[in-house]
Amino acid sequence: MTPNHDIHWQQTDIDRHARSLIKLQTSCVLWFTGLSGAGKSTIANLVEKRLHAMGRHTYLLDGDNIRHGLNRDLGFSNADRSENIRRVAEVSRLMMDAGLIVLASFISPFSAERRIARDMVGTNEFVEIFIQTPLSVAEQRDPKGLYKKARDGNFRNFTGIDSPYEIPESPEISIDTTSCMPHESCERIVNYLLSIGIMQ
Amino acid sequence: MTPNHDIHWQQTDIDRHARSLIKLQTSCVLWFTGLSGAGKSTIANLVEKRLHAMGRHTYLLDGDNIRHGLNRDLGFSNADRSENIRRVAEVSRLMMDAGLIVLASFISPFSAERRIARDMVGTNEFVEIFIQTPLSVAEQRDPKGLYKKARDGNFRNFTGIDSPYEIPESPEISIDTTSCMPHESCERIVNYLLSIGIMQ
Repeated sequence: MTPNHDIHWQQTDIDRHARSLIKLQTSCVLWFTGLSGAGKSTIANLVEKRLHAMGRHTYLLDGDNIRHGLNRDLGFSNADRSENIRRVAEVSRLMMDAGLIVLASFISPFSAERRIARDMVGTNEFVEIFIQTPLSVAEQRDPKGLYKKARDGNFRNFTGIDSPYEIPESPEISIDTTSCMPHESCERIVNYLLSIGIMQ
Repeated sequence: MTPNHDIHWQQTDIDRHARSLIKLQTSCVLWFTGLSGAGKSTIANLVEKRLHAMGRHTYLLDGDNIRHGLNRDLGFSNADRSENIRRVAEVSRLMMDAGLIVLASFISPFSAERRIARDMVGTNEFVEIFIQTPLSVAEQRDPKGLYKKARDGNFRNFTGIDSPYEIPESPEISIDTTSCMPHESCERIVNYLLSIGIMQ
């Protein structure tokens, strides 16, 4: 194995600024966190549609989809969940470097891994969006039937049931889905991006 | 661990076509393969600059840079090299899905892994570019001093020294760097993309 100091950093001429400029936007990562069934994908999907209609260049990284591809070698132990988030944060960073507005939708239950993602991306470019839904409501929605399976003991380490969800302490945006409808939530997020100058 | 059939596929509304359309290009992956020191990064960097000047949206994934981030947990055993390429192919596919023209510059010495990358990306979107440089020439250039270290026995599994490079059998483009200068190589690649309709 080559020691790491033998891996050089390859300087490239076209950088994030040049790539963003051609897209008339400032690239960033919108990080959606919340319980399974909280509404992350629904809201992220609406935001992407809205940004796309505004001519912005986006990409939506979704937990389920990434686990079918890049992270299909990973399970749901704490170590694997951390590695899952580490890789997703790295891919988000690469895509941000490519000039895109990245929407990352992951349960990401642990404060420590959200912190790692934020540090990796850069705190000025990281917008943490807490999709806040009480467990009882998420469990009642249960769009994928996963809570039922977890309650029946069919699998372990399910967030909210036998694995904790650590509430974000200071997310940039917090949305209570019991009082805020998906379209309103989308508007709030887009208005926030306009207000901080990510988009003009 | 949740079995894989419990991981749903999250359908999103904005797809590759919509993302590419906004960028006025067809997304694809340009896969540069060849020995260390063959000239992959030099040529890929020129191609990216050229495409950027033409208003195209690109991203360059470089072997060394990815090993500092996403793949920093991997070494140089055959298994780790394969996992390195699998992840890179997955990221290339995601970025292609994001509508970008991806330039992937990796030694990728094994036919089997280049085949995996091609299958993962889709053969119509995968442009394999063999940067062909004799070992003796690459070793003489030795821009990072790695051949010397490998010859001195400082590390193992170095492509061309104690690990094979399997020549691509039918790459879309093959460039002999002993007769074709970097700028000419860049022109050939861009002309090829125009000829197959990746760009208008």
